[in-house]
Amino acid sequence: MMLLEEWIRKYGTVKDGDVLKVDSFLNHQMDVSLFDKMAKEWKRLFAGSEINKILTIEASGIGIACIAALEFGCPAVFAKKNKTRNIAGEVYSAKVKSFTHGTTYDVIVSRDFLGPDDKLLIIDDFLANGAALEGLLDIAAQAGAEVTGAGIAIEKVFQHGGDRIRSRGVRVESLARIKAFGPDGSIEFMH
Amino acid sequence: MMLLEEWIRKYGTVKDGDVLKVDSFLNHQMDVSLFDKMAKEWKRLFAGSEINKILTIEASGIGIACIAALEFGCPAVFAKKNKTRNIAGEVYSAKVKSFTHGTTYDVIVSRDFLGPDDKLLIIDDFLANGAALEGLLDIAAQAGAEVTGAGIAIEKVFQHGGDRIRSRGVRVESLARIKAFGPDGSIEFMH
Repeated sequence: MMLLEEWIRKYGTVKDGDVLKVDSFLNHQMDVSLFDKMAKEWKRLFAGSEINKILTIEASGIGIACIAALEFGCPAVFAKKNKTRNIAGEVYSAKVKSFTHGTTYDVIVSRDFLGPDDKLLIIDDFLANGAALEGLLDIAAQAGAEVTGAGIAIEKVFQHGGDRIRSRGVRVESLARIKAFGPDGSIEFMH
Repeated sequence: MMLLEEWIRKYGTVKDGDVLKVDSFLNHQMDVSLFDKMAKEWKRLFAGSEINKILTIEASGIGIACIAALEFGCPAVFAKKNKTRNIAGEVYSAKVKSFTHGTTYDVIVSRDFLGPDDKLLIIDDFLANGAALEGLLDIAAQAGAEVTGAGIAIEKVFQHGGDRIRSRGVRVESLARIKAFGPDGSIEFMH
């Protein structure tokens, strides 16, 4: 999606450790008019596919997921990063390893809000190593829900999470795919 | 707002300790078509007021704030619950005491995304003791931003945070105001 690439080039900054900072429009300040165009692009890409629920993960996926849900005419559910006790039997739960922070955390979704009738579009801001997306796929599998596909804003292709998940047969539509960062902070996109 | 009251009566459940569970449509599963109607109601209430940015707090404010931002035609910014070190000078920061969990946490907003030119509508899902809203007002004050008002989905009037904040001269528009919970789990609204 050219517009998102343009935004990344214009307002994104590359930090040490292949970190791309896009907090001026994507995950701290949120340009919802951009989110709206992203949602319309996913709607175009998944035209004809059955989707009755959006699934995402807190916190930075929520805004994009809600605008997408408005476009798809369905509710959104966000997986919570679990800070308290895990209420056995009441939630689906998966472990997610954060490569950025070197920590592992649990994500949970109430059993009330996902089930075998659901056809999910999973939405998230970033796909890098794929740990968060794999956690959401795990939760969808526990619920017996069908995953129609995943809509990602920015994929860091060189971190291979996307390849691994596509090889499992999951349709992943990333709106901007980054091949490499240059030593000068430049960004090379894959088309 | 009658529709939100209807949703609360229909899908909300009252738990011990005056906890109202609305996670089937407000803060875990999110009914974005309801959010859209809430956003239009705030737009009507704040018609003629200058608003160029929505400010909210993670996680459950983000969805409502983004749909409101789409309606108001402006960006949204969410205050982050700070888990790591506080980078001095780069962020505005406030302490928020959670009465539900008995803990205190820091919320931060990057200095890049709030300033003296901003006229804010603060959005959140709940207003009870008012601690989260006071944290956001504190951050707005640090930034020199003007607070046009606050749009709240559900106010628990009997916990008095709303009264205290209104008495400071802040305009607070809550779409559903709960006066009391009955011992049988019934909900009494204030009009």
